[in-house]
Amino acid sequence: MRVLGLDPGLRITGWGMIEMIDNRLRYLGDGTIRSDDKLSLAERLGQLHRGVLRVIADWSPDAAGVEQTFVNKNPESTLKLGQARGVVLLAPALAGLEVGEYAPTQVKQAVVGTGRAAKEQVGMMVRTLLPGCLVTSADAADALAVAICHAHHAATARRLKAGVR
Amino acid sequence: MRVLGLDPGLRITGWGMIEMIDNRLRYLGDGTIRSDDKLSLAERLGQLHRGVLRVIADWSPDAAGVEQTFVNKNPESTLKLGQARGVVLLAPALAGLEVGEYAPTQVKQAVVGTGRAAKEQVGMMVRTLLPGCLVTSADAADALAVAICHAHHAATARRLKAGVR
Repeated sequence: MRVLGLDPGLRITGWGMIEMIDNRLRYLGDGTIRSDDKLSLAERLGQLHRGVLRVIADWSPDAAGVEQTFVNKNPESTLKLGQARGVVLLAPALAGLEVGEYAPTQVKQAVVGTGRAAKEQVGMMVRTLLPGCLVTSADAADALAVAICHAHHAATARRLKAGVR
Repeated sequence: MRVLGLDPGLRITGWGMIEMIDNRLRYLGDGTIRSDDKLSLAERLGQLHRGVLRVIADWSPDAAGVEQTFVNKNPESTLKLGQARGVVLLAPALAGLEVGEYAPTQVKQAVVGTGRAAKEQVGMMVRTLLPGCLVTSADAADALAVAICHAHHAATARRLKAGVR
């Protein structure tokens, strides 16, 4: 199963692609999609959405995990993030992929083993869990962490379904 | 020029279609796009986005106006609205339409003549400015008001360009 992880943001959206074969994880690729802040909001949302669709077309994932947005105290930032998150989340849904949403604490729990891990610990564990992983940026590392989290949840769901607990 | 007006919301997104010929406005149609709250957020965003794309395919507008979201005091609602607004705004951008964004006060100013008009006044003026207009709901009335606002702005921009002030 190929899993796409997404960490949405209006300026930078991180993505990471992994593969799970027999509960073993393999790194495939990662990167960022940027929107040009000189363009209108509508055009910037178009850039993000098309960017995610391109990653999906290039790698043909089976499922996607998206980080649940941290609810900021500043309503303007929350609104911006919400708009970016909407068009990013839309891309795998339109492509017919199964989409899982995960809170930052769930992602940290899956990758580090505790929901209160620091950002640097997440990056370090991503590199440990995915040998050969390049991780080109912090946003891409977060996206890979979401992909790992979704892969774990999918594996658990499969085991439960098969009656193996 | 055909103008699509959009009033985004996660549960209900209103739309209204008008035509401007020689600065005269004509009502073409209106309606709402609803998302099923039993589905996942990704699926609901897909419903809204596909709904707007369908309206664009049915009516072939030349431009679109979208209401700028009221920044709510509740961050959860702001985030939900942001996500809906993102996928609604994305549709005309992907279709290559010119997209204008207008604050609620700008919309009221264009339709009623004052930025402090009550919601009921907007609905009443929409019916007066667009004879024969059905207005099936409050959300559709707001969307028609945004369309009128965009048509006025486009007409003013054309006059300025032509040197007629």
